[in-house]
Amino acid sequence: MRVVVPFAPERPKTRLAPVLDEAERAAFARAMLDDTLSALSTLDRERRVSVEPLVLSTAPLDCDAAVVVDDRPLTDAVNDRLPASDSDDPVAVVMADLSLATPDALERLFEPDADVVIAPGRGGGTNALVVRHPDFRVDYHGASVRDHREIVRDAELSLAEVDSFRLATDVDEPADLVEVLLHGTGGAAAWLREAGFSVVTADGRVDIERNSG
Amino acid sequence: MRVVVPFAPERPKTRLAPVLDEAERAAFARAMLDDTLSALSTLDRERRVSVEPLVLSTAPLDCDAAVVVDDRPLTDAVNDRLPASDSDDPVAVVMADLSLATPDALERLFEPDADVVIAPGRGGGTNALVVRHPDFRVDYHGASVRDHREIVRDAELSLAEVDSFRLATDVDEPADLVEVLLHGTGGAAAWLREAGFSVVTADGRVDIERNSG
Repeated sequence: MRVVVPFAPERPKTRLAPVLDEAERAAFARAMLDDTLSALSTLDRERRVSVEPLVLSTAPLDCDAAVVVDDRPLTDAVNDRLPASDSDDPVAVVMADLSLATPDALERLFEPDADVVIAPGRGGGTNALVVRHPDFRVDYHGASVRDHREIVRDAELSLAEVDSFRLATDVDEPADLVEVLLHGTGGAAAWLREAGFSVVTADGRVDIERNSG
Repeated sequence: MRVVVPFAPERPKTRLAPVLDEAERAAFARAMLDDTLSALSTLDRERRVSVEPLVLSTAPLDCDAAVVVDDRPLTDAVNDRLPASDSDDPVAVVMADLSLATPDALERLFEPDADVVIAPGRGGGTNALVVRHPDFRVDYHGASVRDHREIVRDAELSLAEVDSFRLATDVDEPADLVEVLLHGTGGAAAWLREAGFSVVTADGRVDIERNSG
């Protein structure tokens, strides 16, 4: 399956500014993209799931996977890659900051035989989806999971949702780094540890701490 | 399987104080407990999974399920209910604020045939687990998912983790109410709607709003 991975290499992850400077945010975002591509490539190599990743980048990018540059807003750029007619192949869209995504979690995304498969993200997002029907179009603005359910219903398509903590966890804010440190197994978690981050607990609350030594 | 559901009926969910007063927090916490018990009872009734819930309450409680009162700290009270010898039956522990838990999600918790099965919670918690071996004991303080993995490793037990957004979502803070409104199907979501809460989006961010009218 064609798997579109949207990525914005310029000024990524601004909400991480309280804990990472601009160059660090770029490096960390890139480590997360590489983790996502690596999980997809493992799935393709080791299981009976054919995966062809296509990085949909807002700017030119040097990358192992195929890259297409499209600087339009996310919704327009993605919709242009979805099936346009019944004879088109299904297309998946997987966000580039799913640092916890494993081959197992992604395999569960590709399993259901529904017109549309959604992996909800925390906070109302749509972190990953599979589109098998030309009548579905994305709208990433706002609480997109609710809008996408409605689009599916209005077009009288079949819907499946994948219940995955790993796919629900996109990494936008400092608190999300706790999840990467506790559950990540790839380059993004290693990058954070290398940068001095660790998980600390105080008063029963869990937080990140950075050792600059 | 015996399923222990810890619940604190007195002054519950204090971190929801910015949006709910004390009586409302108590009512909402109770609605979440009832959702959890209802999902467990559906599982028992409709699938081949025998479930016997036991509410482990810090104070007397009127409830459809069996209740035992134990006002010790959570870790001590739970450990007293875990298997003490090889001949003891397995025991599951499911938090009472998993308002999104469905029979499907809970069934995935009971499936793996490991000594210990963990459903991690967001922020380092352990929202649900199954214990089949007397050498495992819980420690809910701090980043418990990390500590529980270590306890499993030190005791040379087998571990399975359940990757579920629904089981990972405990409801502690105002932001968590967005998840209940978007994904909940039970009494807690209905209670919130009845209390005037809805999901709103502004500047691409998703938040809750309360209509007091």
